[in-house]
Amino acid sequence: MIILKIGGGKDINITGVAEDLAALSEPLLIVHGANAWRDELAGRMGWEINRVISVSGFSSTLSDTGLIDLQMMAYAGLRNKRIVETLRQHGVNAIGLSGLDGALIRGKRNAGIRVRQKGKLKLLKDFSGKPRSINSALLDMLLEAGYVPVITVPIIDENNRAINSENDDIVTLLNSHYKARRVIQLIEEKGLLSDPADRDSLVEKVTHADLETWINKEQGRIKRKLYAIGKLLAGGAHKVVIADGRVAHPVNAALRDKGTVFE
Amino acid sequence: MIILKIGGGKDINITGVAEDLAALSEPLLIVHGANAWRDELAGRMGWEINRVISVSGFSSTLSDTGLIDLQMMAYAGLRNKRIVETLRQHGVNAIGLSGLDGALIRGKRNAGIRVRQKGKLKLLKDFSGKPRSINSALLDMLLEAGYVPVITVPIIDENNRAINSENDDIVTLLNSHYKARRVIQLIEEKGLLSDPADRDSLVEKVTHADLETWINKEQGRIKRKLYAIGKLLAGGAHKVVIADGRVAHPVNAALRDKGTVFE
Repeated sequence: MIILKIGGGKDINITGVAEDLAALSEPLLIVHGANAWRDELAGRMGWEINRVISVSGFSSTLSDTGLIDLQMMAYAGLRNKRIVETLRQHGVNAIGLSGLDGALIRGKRNAGIRVRQKGKLKLLKDFSGKPRSINSALLDMLLEAGYVPVITVPIIDENNRAINSENDDIVTLLNSHYKARRVIQLIEEKGLLSDPADRDSLVEKVTHADLETWINKEQGRIKRKLYAIGKLLAGGAHKVVIADGRVAHPVNAALRDKGTVFE
Repeated sequence: MIILKIGGGKDINITGVAEDLAALSEPLLIVHGANAWRDELAGRMGWEINRVISVSGFSSTLSDTGLIDLQMMAYAGLRNKRIVETLRQHGVNAIGLSGLDGALIRGKRNAGIRVRQKGKLKLLKDFSGKPRSINSALLDMLLEAGYVPVITVPIIDENNRAINSENDDIVTLLNSHYKARRVIQLIEEKGLLSDPADRDSLVEKVTHADLETWINKEQGRIKRKLYAIGKLLAGGAHKVVIADGRVAHPVNAALRDKGTVFE
């Protein structure tokens, strides 16, 4: 089993990914983002993504009904179906699914974001949460029949509402069940950079012992990603590779350990 | 087996549909449209749907890449996932799929639209076509496992490209394989109207013999729909009901023959 996470940027070479995957003969699960498409669509619609500042000072996206609509259109609609189309053109037996379909990814809705409005503390409920379980019977059935599930948000909460969640958490959950031989994450960088200002400062290897040092050193999005990788390794992933999705053969390169290897 | 086609208008009562379907205990296939959502999205994006006039004088929508993108967002994205969500909230084990997913609905791309441009005859190729075959192994597997497939465009052509097609043709193709006990089509009218200006002029019953008279009498969209119903009956549908999707319990009413019954 290989779990492939495809980042949500426009420079990921999906044709190269499709060519690489067509040559593989082991079970595959794909999870993808679509940030760039979501933001472009929001821009074209003149739609402002609602951001709030919590009382603890963090800025978050409010996953209101409109944001979930947008996610359905950009992630589960446009990007998912275009990826499925490209994969099928290269002979990969792809089937696109959101976390809602067959309740594939079940989550627990977040309690809400604590904000101060007009001097009063308030809990803003939104449609976001953490994935908690997968419909492995459905995935097993599809995998055994030779399909390659191409999975994306939204997922489904305990009351069957569509909610937003982190792709990293979905990958962690899938891996805790399937214990992948490789988890590959394709991004628009060469991998983890020791100096974010220097795009060639690739860190080739991070041992489990190094990881904590890195997590303490980094901030924001990268810190969260590294933390997720720690959970992946703890959950039984044999090897995680963060690799460049922009090259001619992104998956082949990642399988040859080009990028940042965590083990 | 019941095949349910849900029209693409905003007044269809999906909650009522979900309540009705939850009480049924036979296999179900759903095919849905999303015209209203597509047009709304196009409007919000300031996106002009490309219409061309063929040399024979017919106006058609040009299914260019942008239109297929729009279809992926509105049909396979927003509407499909919101229908799946509502069905699941009522205990229907829905799984949303476009015709691309697992090559569920395979079609043949149209030759093109013959137009005259700057005095010269030209064949405008677009991404549209006719559905020709279904992946019944995938549908059978899902149906046997208790899922309710919720199907929509685009479909996939002979070269694995996403193409637009008529929902009526998809329903006909599904029915020619599954020979449904009932084909129900939910629309935003009481059924077939004898006088389009009088929304209460419901035609309650159309026999096979009547159908040709009706096809000759009607024009445009209705003519095409009636023609499709003729093909459905010829293809082994036991009964087709065109019924009002706006009532409290649209499927229950259709099963009690409220609407226009074709047999």
